[in-house]
Amino acid sequence: MSTSQEWFDKQSRELVHLESILEMLGWDQNTTMPSSGAGPRAQQSASLAALYHQRLNRPRWSEVLGELESREQDQWTGAAVREMRRKYDRATRIPEALVRELAETVSLGYEAWVAARKESDFEAFRPWLERILRLKRQEAACLATGDCLYDALLDDYEPGMTVRQLDPVFSRLRPQLTRLLGRIQEASHQPPAELLTGRYPRAAQEAFGRNVLSAIGFDWKAGRLDVSPHPFCCGFSPQDVRITTRYGEDSFVSSFFGIVHEGGHALYEQGLGGDRYGSPACQSISLGIHESQSRLWENQVARSRPFWEYWYPKLRQAFPGQLDTVPLDSFLRGVNRVEASLIRVEADEVTYGLHIILRYELEKALLDQDLPVSDLEGIWVERMREYLGIVPGNAADGVLQDTHWSCGLVGYFPTYLLGNLYAAQIYGRARQTFCDLDTQFAFGQYLPLREWLREQIHRKGRTRTAGELILEISGEPLDSRYLLRYLEEKFCRLYELSG
Amino acid sequence: MSTSQEWFDKQSRELVHLESILEMLGWDQNTTMPSSGAGPRAQQSASLAALYHQRLNRPRWSEVLGELESREQDQWTGAAVREMRRKYDRATRIPEALVRELAETVSLGYEAWVAARKESDFEAFRPWLERILRLKRQEAACLATGDCLYDALLDDYEPGMTVRQLDPVFSRLRPQLTRLLGRIQEASHQPPAELLTGRYPRAAQEAFGRNVLSAIGFDWKAGRLDVSPHPFCCGFSPQDVRITTRYGEDSFVSSFFGIVHEGGHALYEQGLGGDRYGSPACQSISLGIHESQSRLWENQVARSRPFWEYWYPKLRQAFPGQLDTVPLDSFLRGVNRVEASLIRVEADEVTYGLHIILRYELEKALLDQDLPVSDLEGIWVERMREYLGIVPGNAADGVLQDTHWSCGLVGYFPTYLLGNLYAAQIYGRARQTFCDLDTQFAFGQYLPLREWLREQIHRKGRTRTAGELILEISGEPLDSRYLLRYLEEKFCRLYELSG
Repeated sequence: MSTSQEWFDKQSRELVHLESILEMLGWDQNTTMPSSGAGPRAQQSASLAALYHQRLNRPRWSEVLGELESREQDQWTGAAVREMRRKYDRATRIPEALVRELAETVSLGYEAWVAARKESDFEAFRPWLERILRLKRQEAACLATGDCLYDALLDDYEPGMTVRQLDPVFSRLRPQLTRLLGRIQEASHQPPAELLTGRYPRAAQEAFGRNVLSAIGFDWKAGRLDVSPHPFCCGFSPQDVRITTRYGEDSFVSSFFGIVHEGGHALYEQGLGGDRYGSPACQSISLGIHESQSRLWENQVARSRPFWEYWYPKLRQAFPGQLDTVPLDSFLRGVNRVEASLIRVEADEVTYGLHIILRYELEKALLDQDLPVSDLEGIWVERMREYLGIVPGNAADGVLQDTHWSCGLVGYFPTYLLGNLYAAQIYGRARQTFCDLDTQFAFGQYLPLREWLREQIHRKGRTRTAGELILEISGEPLDSRYLLRYLEEKFCRLYELSG
Repeated sequence: MSTSQEWFDKQSRELVHLESILEMLGWDQNTTMPSSGAGPRAQQSASLAALYHQRLNRPRWSEVLGELESREQDQWTGAAVREMRRKYDRATRIPEALVRELAETVSLGYEAWVAARKESDFEAFRPWLERILRLKRQEAACLATGDCLYDALLDDYEPGMTVRQLDPVFSRLRPQLTRLLGRIQEASHQPPAELLTGRYPRAAQEAFGRNVLSAIGFDWKAGRLDVSPHPFCCGFSPQDVRITTRYGEDSFVSSFFGIVHEGGHALYEQGLGGDRYGSPACQSISLGIHESQSRLWENQVARSRPFWEYWYPKLRQAFPGQLDTVPLDSFLRGVNRVEASLIRVEADEVTYGLHIILRYELEKALLDQDLPVSDLEGIWVERMREYLGIVPGNAADGVLQDTHWSCGLVGYFPTYLLGNLYAAQIYGRARQTFCDLDTQFAFGQYLPLREWLREQIHRKGRTRTAGELILEISGEPLDSRYLLRYLEEKFCRLYELSG
């Protein structure tokens, strides 16, 4: 082994460790940290982020990467080198002072968002959002990846994806979704909104969620489930993957599907394989692929009839008296109820994409300064009316509902919809591979699917790009017709619409 | 501000942040981390520790410290420079090869100790202790602080303390404690051993402990209480201080006094004052002073009659039926029961010092090679008989009971007894300052005492040495008569001994 390779291995492993620690600090802040700790934690995170940045900025990287790139490599080493090149280019192009200012601003900006959302006061958060956008513009200008500022930010979450690719996919899908929503809204058969509300004690919800996580193959020796204001998944290593949810006691729906969603993310992280931890290639491909795993388990699996044929009796047992008068058919319509609603994270499968396209369009305009932050709250309301036909009554249910911008995540939202698109395409292939998938689900068997996903996706780490992976699995490039066909088939049946 | 001062501030702040993060990783491992996470966590911690060491070893430290030491400084800057000098000297005087050999040896030595204690087989641990002592001698020789090898090690835990100061204090105190123990053992009035055992549900213990922590002024916005195998306190910053305990349901005694003990440590950490966080001077003075704060709240406050005049009715309410037949007088004798026992961590206030003095004498002799390791087990038994009148039936209850030596902690034990000595001397002064302290306690008022401690000790950070602080507070240097007087008064009354 050459000296360059040794240096590469040692240095890239150290960087992976520092990334894990930074994530750990964030997890703690969201789940565990006492409130006064925010100030010092921001300083600690900023120092570590700066140190990380310095280590990634060492001049020798350029020489070592150049040398390793000129060699024939096995696919894991090649992927590790590719990934370090991405990181190195991003790091060397952004000055340390900007990194530090961003880290401190988003740490405090997050606290400001928590307070502003509580008071439903967009004006209290507005100056923070302006500061964050100004810094993100600087960051994008330094990166200069793709054709526009937005591409440079998007590339961080979905490597290789561009506005030029996304715009046609999203602008084609948007009217199709709005049309499907319209047909569903006109159906005579509408499940009542309050069908599934009742008394669902938190402890029983948690126990039921844990049972389902165990069944889909979540490894508790390598993971945890906790509570946080906004559900998320963190993998500090494949052996330590933590998910969170939040509970409301009048309904189990939001927390349950939240748990399965984060559980899908966690299966990906745990499936990466601990033996390769420390390599930059032992990581997920992109946020879109990550989201495909959470959506597949949440929607394709856990909102399906066969899934509930097994679990519905157990759910009724877990909450005695709450669902006695609700037959399985009605229950399925209840958990798949389509409704134009205000909150993205509670949106159904049909309207979800519309929420994302709205955010994608607005954040692109904010970044390009085509839309001033002072107009954001108003434009939000207008677009909601246009795409979904409803408007939020306050900022907490509108523009303040998501944490992303407060954390500096601009260019992140489209990956959610990409996740749905990838999920539909991957799941289509899974159904061809296993002709008895419905039977398996109805018997509570989910490990064959988890193993197939592990083999097809998880264990490959970053040795493929998202585009290569989708082609490898489905034999076709990304195609929005998979998602549309899946939605039309499912909801035509549920709402008894004509084909 | 000079360039050297700026460099110093930035670099020392970064090191403080890394220390906080390393502590955070340890806290998480002990309280929260899923079991499979241990391997990757060890790698993450090792990477960060190595990075910390590199940053502390930067050649510019020598020049900057030299320059700042030659200047007049305000007390906070002076203390920060002094503290960085200590850290820098320790980091640079010990060769890397020795650091590595020590780390490897104590890591294996710890495993050997765990196995040896399980089998109660001192011979299995003996070669490891010899190796560890040999390396600690080398470390002490490199450090060359104080008059002897032991001083150099002691200085790491109790800066400025020496064998020359400790020997007369401990050798005077030892026969006095043995004599007091003898008088107590001859008293006709002995509380029964099982007086306070019963059914104490964990949730009620935790709730009661939290109430007491709130009353003594623990700030929940800047702290947490969790569970871990061994109770401890971690301050990641004055705004984020976390303590742990463990619960047994047949008695509340060990967990309750554990909570108050760690709570005392936490009040010190919270009291350091967040505005100075990041300065190396905004830290506790020494382990002995830290221990004085935990002991003062645990013993002087929470084992006193006035304290329980307020809390005993609440304790009875918290555990219905468990203490109905135990009047307050008996209860107080129960929680202050004195007994010659084998295990240090379970020892009462009178015998605790004897356990420490025994360890101090033996580890000093081991380090100086006046005592061969092969004779250690025999000498342990002899001294136990002499000081406490009892002997262990096996090595696990004797020489193998503590983990310290296996972890390379030589010179650490005396800080526990120093904590008791400082606590008595500080508390003596507090009683002169507040003539109505007993009345305050009996009315559940503890904040005046906390404020006084904050002002006298906590807020001063490291601007004083332990010796200076004790002199400043009490008007006298360290004096063991305070502890002896406190113990004699308290236990003569409890055991109805003649003055």
